Amino acid sequence: MPHTLILLRHGESDWNQKNLFTGWVDVRLSEKGRAEASRAGVLLAEQGVLPDVLHTSVLTRAIQTANLALDAADLAWIPVRRSWRLNERHYGALQGLDKAETQQKYGNEQFMLWRRSFDVPPPPLDDDAEWSQVGDPRYADLTDDQMPRTECLKDVIARMLPYWQSDIVPDLAAGKTVLVTAHGNSLRALVKHLDGIGDDDIAELNIPTGIPLVYELGDDFMPLGPGRYLDPEAAAAGAAAVAAQGDKK
Amino acid sequence: MPHTLILLRHGESDWNQKNLFTGWVDVRLSEKGRAEASRAGVLLAEQGVLPDVLHTSVLTRAIQTANLALDAADLAWIPVRRSWRLNERHYGALQGLDKAETQQKYGNEQFMLWRRSFDVPPPPLDDDAEWSQVGDPRYADLTDDQMPRTECLKDVIARMLPYWQSDIVPDLAAGKTVLVTAHGNSLRALVKHLDGIGDDDIAELNIPTGIPLVYELGDDFMPLGPGRYLDPEAAAAGAAAVAAQGDKK
Repeated sequence: MPHTLILLRHGESDWNQKNLFTGWVDVRLSEKGRAEASRAGVLLAEQGVLPDVLHTSVLTRAIQTANLALDAADLAWIPVRRSWRLNERHYGALQGLDKAETQQKYGNEQFMLWRRSFDVPPPPLDDDAEWSQVGDPRYADLTDDQMPRTECLKDVIARMLPYWQSDIVPDLAAGKTVLVTAHGNSLRALVKHLDGIGDDDIAELNIPTGIPLVYELGDDFMPLGPGRYLDPEAAAAGAAAVAAQGDKK
Repeated sequence: MPHTLILLRHGESDWNQKNLFTGWVDVRLSEKGRAEASRAGVLLAEQGVLPDVLHTSVLTRAIQTANLALDAADLAWIPVRRSWRLNERHYGALQGLDKAETQQKYGNEQFMLWRRSFDVPPPPLDDDAEWSQVGDPRYADLTDDQMPRTECLKDVIARMLPYWQSDIVPDLAAGKTVLVTAHGNSLRALVKHLDGIGDDDIAELNIPTGIPLVYELGDDFMPLGPGRYLDPEAAAAGAAAVAAQGDKK
Protein backbone atom coordinates (compact mmCIF):
# COMPACT_ATOMS: atom_id res chain seq x y z
CA MET A 1 0.00 0.00 0.00
CA PRO A 2 1.53 3.33 -1.01
CA HIS A 3 1.57 6.16 1.51
CA THR A 4 -0.25 9.34 0.53
CA LEU A 5 1.23 12.79 1.17
CA ILE A 6 -0.56 16.04 0.31
CA LEU A 7 1.34 19.33 0.14
CA LEU A 8 -0.52 22.65 0.18
CA ARG A 9 1.08 26.07 -0.14
CA HIS A 10 -0.86 28.92 1.45
CA GLY A 11 -2.46 31.48 -0.83
CA GLU A 12 -2.12 35.22 -1.09
CA SER A 13 -1.38 37.16 2.10
CA ASP A 14 -1.83 40.83 2.92
CA TRP A 15 1.88 41.36 2.32
CA ASN A 16 1.91 39.60 -1.05
CA GLN A 17 -0.53 42.28 -2.13
CA LYS A 18 1.73 44.99 -0.73
CA ASN A 19 4.84 43.43 -2.35
CA LEU A 20 6.76 43.24 0.96
CA PHE A 21 9.27 40.56 2.00
CA THR A 22 7.45 38.46 4.60
CA GLY A 23 9.47 35.48 5.82
CA TRP A 24 8.64 34.87 9.49
CA VAL A 25 6.51 38.02 9.84
CA ASP A 26 3.09 36.69 10.84
CA VAL A 27 0.81 38.27 8.26
CA ARG A 28 -2.69 37.04 7.48
CA LEU A 29 -4.35 35.72 4.33
CA SER A 30 -5.99 38.24 2.03
CA GLU A 31 -9.57 37.64 0.92
CA LYS A 32 -8.16 36.09 -2.24
CA GLY A 33 -5.93 33.84 -0.13
CA ARG A 34 -8.92 32.72 1.93
CA ALA A 35 -10.83 31.82 -1.22
CA GLU A 36 -7.82 29.85 -2.51
CA ALA A 37 -7.73 27.88 0.74
CA SER A 38 -11.41 27.00 0.66
CA ARG A 39 -11.14 25.89 -2.93
CA ALA A 40 -8.23 23.61 -2.02
CA GLY A 41 -10.54 21.91 0.46
CA VAL A 42 -13.21 21.48 -2.18
CA LEU A 43 -10.62 19.85 -4.48
CA LEU A 44 -9.63 17.40 -1.72
CA ALA A 45 -13.26 16.49 -1.05
CA GLU A 46 -14.30 16.23 -4.71
CA GLN A 47 -11.38 13.97 -5.58
CA GLY A 48 -11.63 11.92 -2.40
CA VAL A 49 -8.09 12.69 -1.25
CA LEU A 50 -8.89 12.87 2.45
CA PRO A 51 -6.13 13.58 4.98
CA ASP A 52 -6.13 11.77 8.32
CA VAL A 53 -3.75 14.20 9.99
CA LEU A 54 -2.51 17.75 9.41
CA HIS A 55 0.96 19.25 9.88
CA THR A 56 1.32 23.04 9.65
CA SER A 57 3.88 25.69 10.35
CA VAL A 58 3.25 28.08 13.27
CA LEU A 59 2.55 30.98 10.92
CA THR A 60 -1.03 32.24 10.79
CA ARG A 61 -1.32 32.25 7.00
CA ALA A 62 -0.57 28.51 6.77
CA ILE A 63 -2.86 27.73 9.70
CA GLN A 64 -5.69 29.78 8.22
CA THR A 65 -5.18 27.93 4.94
CA ALA A 66 -5.43 24.57 6.68
CA ASN A 67 -8.46 25.60 8.75
CA LEU A 68 -10.35 26.90 5.73
CA ALA A 69 -9.43 23.95 3.50
CA LEU A 70 -10.34 21.33 6.11
CA ASP A 71 -13.56 23.15 6.95
CA ALA A 72 -14.53 23.12 3.27
CA ALA A 73 -13.73 19.38 3.11
CA ASP A 74 -15.73 18.63 6.31
CA LEU A 75 -12.50 17.47 7.93
CA ALA A 76 -12.05 20.14 10.60
CA TRP A 77 -11.82 17.38 13.21
CA ILE A 78 -8.61 15.66 12.08
CA PRO A 79 -5.65 15.86 14.47
CA VAL A 80 -3.18 18.66 13.89
CA ARG A 81 0.50 19.20 14.70
CA ARG A 82 2.32 22.49 14.26
CA SER A 83 6.05 23.14 14.03
CA TRP A 84 8.29 26.12 13.42
CA ARG A 85 10.35 23.75 11.26
CA LEU A 86 7.67 24.06 8.55
CA ASN A 87 7.85 27.88 8.60
CA GLU A 88 8.69 29.97 5.58
CA ARG A 89 12.34 30.87 5.04
CA HIS A 90 13.44 33.62 7.45
CA TYR A 91 14.21 36.53 5.18
CA GLY A 92 16.68 38.24 7.51
CA ALA A 93 17.09 42.00 7.22
CA LEU A 94 14.86 42.01 4.15
CA GLN A 95 11.74 41.20 6.21
CA GLY A 96 9.31 44.09 6.03
CA LEU A 97 11.09 45.77 3.09
CA ASP A 98 9.44 46.62 -0.21
CA LYS A 99 10.61 44.21 -2.91
CA ALA A 100 10.85 46.77 -5.69
CA GLU A 101 12.73 49.27 -3.51
CA THR A 102 15.13 46.54 -2.40
CA GLN A 103 15.80 45.53 -5.98
CA GLN A 104 16.51 49.16 -6.89
CA LYS A 105 18.72 49.79 -3.88
CA TYR A 106 20.93 46.70 -4.12
CA GLY A 107 20.73 46.00 -7.86
CA ASN A 108 19.19 43.04 -9.59
CA GLU A 109 22.14 40.70 -9.23
CA GLN A 110 22.31 40.95 -5.43
CA PHE A 111 18.55 40.90 -5.23
CA MET A 112 18.27 37.66 -7.21
CA LEU A 113 21.16 36.12 -5.26
CA TRP A 114 19.31 36.65 -1.98
CA ARG A 115 16.09 35.34 -3.43
CA ARG A 116 17.28 32.41 -5.47
CA SER A 117 20.71 31.22 -4.46
CA PHE A 118 20.86 27.93 -2.58
CA ASP A 119 23.28 28.97 0.11
CA VAL A 120 23.58 32.78 0.31
CA PRO A 121 21.30 34.19 3.03
CA PRO A 122 20.35 37.86 3.24
CA PRO A 123 22.01 39.89 6.02
CA PRO A 124 20.76 38.86 9.49
CA LEU A 125 17.90 40.73 11.13
CA ASP A 126 18.72 42.55 14.38
CA ASP A 127 16.97 41.09 17.42
CA ASP A 128 15.53 44.49 18.28
CA ALA A 129 14.37 45.26 14.74
CA GLU A 130 10.69 45.89 14.16
CA TRP A 131 10.17 42.67 12.21
CA SER A 132 12.26 40.38 14.42
CA GLN A 133 10.50 37.33 15.91
CA VAL A 134 12.96 36.96 18.80
CA GLY A 135 10.85 36.92 21.96
CA ASP A 136 7.67 35.77 20.21
CA PRO A 137 6.13 33.23 22.63
CA ARG A 138 5.50 30.71 19.85
CA TYR A 139 9.28 30.24 19.63
CA ALA A 140 9.87 30.03 23.38
CA ASP A 141 10.96 26.38 23.14
CA LEU A 142 13.70 27.05 20.58
CA THR A 143 17.29 27.31 21.68
CA ASP A 144 19.02 30.53 20.70
CA ASP A 145 20.97 28.52 18.10
CA GLN A 146 17.77 27.23 16.56
CA MET A 147 16.17 30.67 16.30
CA PRO A 148 17.08 32.01 12.86
CA ARG A 149 18.00 35.64 12.13
CA THR A 150 18.23 34.89 8.40
CA GLU A 151 18.12 31.80 6.24
CA CYS A 152 19.00 30.56 2.78
CA LEU A 153 17.20 27.56 1.28
CA LYS A 154 19.99 25.30 2.51
CA ASP A 155 19.22 26.43 6.06
CA VAL A 156 15.52 25.75 5.57
CA ILE A 157 16.31 22.20 4.46
CA ALA A 158 18.54 21.70 7.48
CA ARG A 159 15.80 22.59 9.95
CA MET A 160 12.84 21.15 7.99
CA LEU A 161 14.10 17.64 7.17
CA PRO A 162 14.50 16.54 10.81
CA TYR A 163 10.77 17.21 11.27
CA TRP A 164 9.95 15.21 8.16
CA GLN A 165 11.83 12.27 9.61
CA SER A 166 10.74 12.58 13.23
CA ASP A 167 7.10 13.59 12.87
CA ILE A 168 5.68 13.25 9.36
CA VAL A 169 7.21 9.93 8.29
CA PRO A 170 5.89 8.16 11.44
CA ASP A 171 2.35 9.29 10.58
CA LEU A 172 2.80 7.98 7.05
CA ALA A 173 4.23 4.76 8.42
CA ALA A 174 1.11 4.38 10.57
CA GLY A 175 -0.94 4.34 7.37
CA LYS A 176 -2.22 7.88 7.64
CA THR A 177 -2.75 10.21 4.70
CA VAL A 178 -0.81 13.34 5.71
CA LEU A 179 -1.58 16.94 4.75
CA VAL A 180 1.29 19.43 5.09
CA THR A 181 0.18 23.05 4.88
CA ALA A 182 3.16 25.35 4.61
CA HIS A 183 5.11 27.86 2.53
CA GLY A 184 6.91 28.34 -0.77
CA ASN A 185 10.35 27.56 0.60
CA SER A 186 9.59 24.94 3.25
CA LEU A 187 7.63 23.00 0.63
CA ARG A 188 10.40 23.58 -1.93
CA ALA A 189 12.80 22.07 0.60
CA LEU A 190 10.59 19.02 1.01
CA VAL A 191 10.03 18.56 -2.74
CA LYS A 192 13.79 18.87 -3.31
CA HIS A 193 14.24 15.90 -0.97
CA LEU A 194 11.38 13.87 -2.45
CA ASP A 195 12.16 14.49 -6.12
CA GLY A 196 15.93 14.47 -5.69
CA ILE A 197 16.37 17.92 -7.23
CA GLY A 198 19.94 19.28 -7.30
CA ASP A 199 21.11 22.37 -5.41
CA ASP A 200 21.47 24.32 -8.65
CA ASP A 201 18.07 23.41 -10.06
CA ILE A 202 15.81 23.87 -7.05
CA ALA A 203 15.48 27.64 -7.56
CA GLU A 204 13.63 26.88 -10.78
CA LEU A 205 10.92 24.96 -8.93
CA ASN A 206 7.80 27.06 -8.43
CA ILE A 207 5.05 25.52 -6.34
CA PRO A 208 1.73 27.22 -7.05
CA THR A 209 -0.43 28.41 -4.16
CA GLY A 210 -3.67 26.83 -3.05
CA ILE A 211 -3.56 23.66 -5.16
CA PRO A 212 -3.03 20.36 -3.35
CA LEU A 213 0.01 18.43 -4.62
CA VAL A 214 -0.34 14.70 -3.99
CA TYR A 215 2.50 12.17 -3.77
CA GLU A 216 2.22 8.43 -3.49
CA LEU A 217 5.22 7.17 -1.52
CA GLY A 218 6.77 3.73 -1.26
CA ASP A 219 8.01 1.91 1.81
CA ASP A 220 11.11 4.08 1.82
CA PHE A 221 8.85 7.18 1.95
CA MET A 222 10.15 8.33 -1.41
CA PRO A 223 7.81 8.96 -4.38
CA LEU A 224 6.62 6.10 -6.59
CA GLY A 225 6.05 8.66 -9.35
CA PRO A 226 5.79 12.39 -9.94
CA GLY A 227 3.62 14.51 -7.67
CA ARG A 228 0.13 15.17 -9.00
CA TYR A 229 -1.70 18.49 -8.65
CA LEU A 230 -5.43 18.13 -8.04
CA ASP A 231 -6.03 20.92 -10.57
CA PRO A 232 -3.21 20.51 -13.14
CA GLU A 233 -4.30 23.40 -15.35
CA ALA A 234 -4.52 25.88 -12.55
CA ALA A 235 -1.22 24.57 -11.17
CA ALA A 236 0.58 25.15 -14.47
CA ALA A 237 -0.84 28.65 -14.74
CA GLY A 238 0.02 29.37 -11.09
CA ALA A 239 3.61 28.15 -11.40
CA ALA A 240 4.11 30.24 -14.53
CA ALA A 241 2.73 33.30 -12.75
CA VAL A 242 5.06 32.76 -9.79
CA ALA A 243 8.04 32.32 -12.09
CA ALA A 244 7.18 35.48 -14.03
CA GLN A 245 6.68 37.66 -10.98
CA GLY A 246 9.45 36.27 -8.83
CA ASP A 247 9.15 34.55 -5.51
CA LYS A 248 5.91 35.50 -3.74
CA LYS A 249 6.44 34.22 -0.23
CA MET B 1 1.13 30.30 40.96
CA PRO B 2 -2.48 29.45 40.23
CA HIS B 3 -3.30 27.51 37.08
CA THR B 4 -5.60 29.20 34.57
CA LEU B 5 -8.38 27.33 32.81
CA ILE B 6 -10.66 28.93 30.20
CA LEU B 7 -13.94 27.28 29.19
CA LEU B 8 -15.74 28.35 26.03
CA ARG B 9 -19.09 27.01 24.87
CA HIS B 10 -19.69 27.18 21.11
CA GLY B 11 -22.29 29.60 19.84
CA GLU B 12 -25.39 29.16 17.74
CA SER B 13 -25.40 26.37 15.16
CA ASP B 14 -27.57 25.81 12.12
CA TRP B 15 -29.65 23.33 14.10
CA ASN B 16 -30.15 25.65 17.08
CA GLN B 17 -31.88 27.91 14.61
CA LYS B 18 -34.02 25.05 13.33
CA ASN B 19 -34.85 23.87 16.88
CA LEU B 20 -33.61 20.30 16.27
CA PHE B 21 -31.92 18.01 18.80
CA THR B 22 -28.26 17.93 17.76
CA GLY B 23 -26.05 15.90 20.12
CA TRP B 24 -23.32 14.22 18.08
CA VAL B 25 -24.72 15.30 14.70
CA ASP B 26 -21.93 17.37 13.17
CA VAL B 27 -23.71 20.62 12.31
CA ARG B 28 -21.92 23.90 11.65
CA LEU B 29 -22.02 27.30 13.28
CA SER B 30 -24.58 29.79 12.01
CA GLU B 31 -23.43 33.28 11.05
CA LYS B 32 -24.48 34.40 14.53
CA GLY B 33 -22.44 31.58 16.05
CA ARG B 34 -19.39 32.62 14.04
CA ALA B 35 -19.73 36.18 15.28
CA GLU B 36 -20.01 34.94 18.88
CA ALA B 37 -16.80 32.95 18.44
CA SER B 38 -14.82 35.88 17.06
CA ARG B 39 -16.05 38.10 19.85
CA ALA B 40 -14.87 35.52 22.41
CA GLY B 41 -11.39 35.84 20.93
CA VAL B 42 -11.54 39.61 21.17
CA LEU B 43 -12.47 39.29 24.87
CA LEU B 44 -9.49 37.00 25.49
CA ALA B 45 -7.11 39.41 23.76
CA GLU B 46 -8.52 42.56 25.34
CA GLN B 47 -8.34 41.14 28.83
CA GLY B 48 -4.98 39.47 28.33
CA VAL B 49 -6.22 35.96 29.11
CA LEU B 50 -4.06 34.16 26.56
CA PRO B 51 -4.23 30.39 26.23
CA ASP B 52 -1.05 28.38 25.63
CA VAL B 53 -2.86 25.28 24.43
CA LEU B 54 -6.31 24.37 23.13
CA HIS B 55 -8.45 21.30 23.78
CA THR B 56 -11.60 20.82 21.67
CA SER B 57 -14.17 18.15 20.96
CA VAL B 58 -14.15 16.53 17.51
CA LEU B 59 -17.38 18.29 16.53
CA THR B 60 -17.09 20.95 13.85
CA ARG B 61 -19.04 23.63 15.73
CA ALA B 62 -16.61 23.56 18.66
CA ILE B 63 -13.57 23.48 16.35
CA GLN B 64 -14.91 26.39 14.29
CA THR B 65 -15.48 28.30 17.53
CA ALA B 66 -11.90 27.69 18.62
CA ASN B 67 -10.45 28.56 15.21
CA LEU B 68 -12.39 31.81 14.96
CA ALA B 69 -11.69 32.84 18.57
CA LEU B 70 -7.96 32.10 18.36
CA ASP B 71 -7.71 33.81 15.00
CA ALA B 72 -9.32 36.94 16.47
CA ALA B 73 -6.87 36.79 19.39
CA ASP B 74 -3.84 36.30 17.09
CA LEU B 75 -3.27 32.92 18.70
CA ALA B 76 -4.02 30.62 15.77
CA TRP B 77 -0.60 29.01 16.30
CA ILE B 78 -1.06 27.47 19.74
CA PRO B 79 -0.99 23.67 19.92
CA VAL B 80 -4.34 21.89 19.77
CA ARG B 81 -5.64 18.55 20.96
CA ARG B 82 -9.05 17.14 20.07
CA SER B 83 -11.03 14.41 21.79
CA TRP B 84 -14.44 12.79 21.41
CA ARG B 85 -14.54 12.86 25.22
CA LEU B 86 -15.28 16.60 25.03
CA ASN B 87 -18.20 16.06 22.63
CA GLU B 88 -21.74 17.18 23.38
CA ARG B 89 -24.04 14.68 25.07
CA HIS B 90 -25.22 12.03 22.60
CA TYR B 91 -28.94 12.63 22.35
CA GLY B 92 -29.87 9.09 21.32
CA ALA B 93 -33.02 8.59 19.28
CA LEU B 94 -33.89 12.26 19.72
CA GLN B 95 -31.02 13.37 17.43
CA GLY B 96 -32.42 15.04 14.35
CA LEU B 97 -35.95 15.41 15.81
CA ASP B 98 -37.77 18.71 16.17
CA LYS B 99 -37.84 19.79 19.81
CA ALA B 100 -41.37 21.14 19.80
CA GLU B 101 -42.75 18.06 18.02
CA THR B 102 -40.95 15.79 20.46
CA GLN B 103 -42.38 17.68 23.41
CA GLN B 104 -45.88 17.37 21.96
CA LYS B 105 -45.52 13.70 21.11
CA TYR B 106 -44.12 12.51 24.43
CA GLY B 107 -45.54 15.10 26.81
CA ASN B 108 -43.67 17.67 28.82
CA GLU B 109 -42.77 15.43 31.73
CA GLN B 110 -40.97 12.83 29.61
CA PHE B 111 -39.44 15.58 27.50
CA MET B 112 -37.95 17.38 30.53
CA LEU B 113 -36.79 14.09 32.02
CA TRP B 114 -34.72 13.34 28.90
CA ARG B 115 -33.35 16.84 28.78
CA ARG B 116 -32.67 17.54 32.41
CA SER B 117 -32.47 14.41 34.48
CA PHE B 118 -29.02 13.41 35.67
CA ASP B 119 -29.23 9.72 34.87
CA VAL B 120 -32.10 9.01 32.47
CA PRO B 121 -30.88 8.86 28.86
CA PRO B 122 -33.22 9.08 25.86
CA PRO B 123 -33.84 5.82 23.95
CA PRO B 124 -30.74 4.66 22.06
CA LEU B 125 -30.24 5.58 18.42
CA ASP B 126 -30.16 2.66 15.96
CA ASP B 127 -26.76 2.19 14.32
CA ASP B 128 -28.35 2.37 10.87
CA ALA B 129 -30.44 5.47 11.66
CA GLU B 130 -29.91 8.58 9.58
CA TRP B 131 -28.29 10.54 12.41
CA SER B 132 -26.13 7.75 13.83
CA GLN B 133 -22.38 8.39 14.04
CA VAL B 134 -21.44 4.72 14.04
CA GLY B 135 -18.92 4.30 11.21
CA ASP B 136 -17.83 7.93 11.19
CA PRO B 137 -14.04 7.80 10.70
CA ARG B 138 -13.41 10.31 13.48
CA TYR B 139 -14.56 7.63 15.94
CA ALA B 140 -12.59 4.80 14.38
CA ASP B 141 -10.34 4.48 17.44
CA LEU B 142 -13.22 4.01 19.89
CA THR B 143 -14.14 0.52 21.06
CA ASP B 144 -17.73 -0.46 20.45
CA ASP B 145 -18.34 -0.07 24.20
CA GLN B 146 -17.01 3.49 24.13
CA MET B 147 -19.19 4.52 21.19
CA PRO B 148 -22.39 5.92 22.68
CA ARG B 149 -25.86 5.34 21.22
CA THR B 150 -27.41 7.64 23.83
CA GLU B 151 -26.19 9.44 26.93
CA CYS B 152 -27.45 11.10 30.10
CA LEU B 153 -25.33 13.72 31.85
CA LYS B 154 -23.95 11.03 34.17
CA ASP B 155 -22.62 9.22 31.09
CA VAL B 156 -21.01 12.40 29.81
CA ILE B 157 -19.21 12.88 33.12
CA ALA B 158 -18.02 9.26 33.01
CA ARG B 159 -16.35 9.68 29.60
CA MET B 160 -15.25 13.32 30.02
CA LEU B 161 -13.50 13.25 33.39
CA PRO B 162 -10.83 10.70 32.36
CA TYR B 163 -9.72 13.16 29.66
CA TRP B 164 -9.61 15.98 32.19
CA GLN B 165 -7.27 13.91 34.32
CA SER B 166 -5.15 12.37 31.56
CA ASP B 167 -4.77 15.26 29.14
CA ILE B 168 -5.92 18.63 30.48
CA VAL B 169 -4.52 18.48 34.03
CA PRO B 170 -1.00 17.63 32.76
CA ASP B 171 -1.04 20.75 30.57
CA LEU B 172 -2.12 22.83 33.58
CA ALA B 173 0.54 21.17 35.70
CA ALA B 174 3.14 22.19 33.09
CA GLY B 175 2.19 25.82 33.71
CA LYS B 176 0.09 26.26 30.60
CA THR B 177 -3.07 28.33 30.39
CA VAL B 178 -5.59 25.91 28.90
CA LEU B 179 -8.56 26.76 26.67
CA VAL B 180 -11.31 24.12 26.44
CA THR B 181 -13.77 24.76 23.61
CA ALA B 182 -16.73 22.45 23.88
CA HIS B 183 -20.47 22.08 24.44
CA GLY B 184 -23.29 22.77 26.89
CA ASN B 185 -23.21 19.36 28.50
CA SER B 186 -19.51 18.48 28.35
CA LEU B 187 -18.73 21.84 29.98
CA ARG B 188 -21.56 21.34 32.46
CA ALA B 189 -19.93 18.05 33.37
CA LEU B 190 -16.59 19.76 33.93
CA VAL B 191 -18.07 22.63 35.94
CA LYS B 192 -19.97 20.12 38.08
CA HIS B 193 -16.63 18.56 38.97
CA LEU B 194 -14.85 21.87 39.53
CA ASP B 195 -17.58 23.58 41.55
CA GLY B 196 -18.71 20.44 43.37
CA ILE B 197 -22.31 20.77 42.22
CA GLY B 198 -24.67 17.98 43.30
CA ASP B 199 -26.42 15.57 40.92
CA ASP B 200 -29.79 17.20 41.61
CA ASP B 201 -28.62 20.77 41.11
CA ILE B 202 -26.52 20.52 37.94
CA ALA B 203 -29.55 20.73 35.63
CA GLU B 204 -30.05 24.28 36.87
CA LEU B 205 -26.61 25.33 35.65
CA ASN B 206 -26.77 27.16 32.34
CA ILE B 207 -23.47 28.05 30.70
CA PRO B 208 -23.95 30.86 28.20
CA THR B 209 -22.52 30.51 24.69
CA GLY B 210 -19.53 32.41 23.36
CA ILE B 211 -18.30 34.00 26.60
CA PRO B 212 -15.00 32.75 28.04
CA LEU B 213 -15.35 31.45 31.62
CA VAL B 214 -12.06 31.67 33.50
CA TYR B 215 -11.06 29.62 36.54
CA GLU B 216 -7.96 30.01 38.66
CA LEU B 217 -7.04 26.59 40.02
CA GLY B 218 -4.85 25.58 42.94
CA ASP B 219 -2.26 22.84 43.12
CA ASP B 220 -5.04 20.27 43.40
CA PHE B 221 -6.48 21.61 40.10
CA MET B 222 -9.65 22.67 41.88
CA PRO B 223 -10.89 26.29 41.81
CA LEU B 224 -9.49 28.90 44.20
CA GLY B 225 -12.71 30.87 43.75
CA PRO B 226 -15.75 31.10 41.52
CA GLY B 227 -15.34 31.06 37.75
CA ARG B 228 -15.30 34.50 36.15
CA TYR B 229 -16.96 35.36 32.82
CA LEU B 230 -15.00 37.82 30.71
CA ASP B 231 -18.27 39.64 29.94
CA PRO B 232 -20.37 39.19 33.10
CA GLU B 233 -23.37 41.17 31.87
CA ALA B 234 -23.65 39.27 28.61
CA ALA B 235 -23.12 36.01 30.52
CA ALA B 236 -25.98 36.71 32.90
CA ALA B 237 -28.27 37.60 30.03
CA GLY B 238 -27.14 34.54 28.06
CA ALA B 239 -27.67 32.14 30.96
CA ALA B 240 -31.15 33.55 31.57
CA ALA B 241 -31.98 33.13 27.90
CA VAL B 242 -30.81 29.52 27.89
CA ALA B 243 -32.80 28.79 31.06
CA ALA B 244 -35.93 30.34 29.59
CA GLN B 245 -35.71 28.51 26.27
CA GLY B 246 -34.47 25.20 27.51
CA ASP B 247 -31.27 23.45 26.62
CA LYS B 248 -29.89 24.67 23.27
CA LYS B 249 -27.14 22.23 22.44
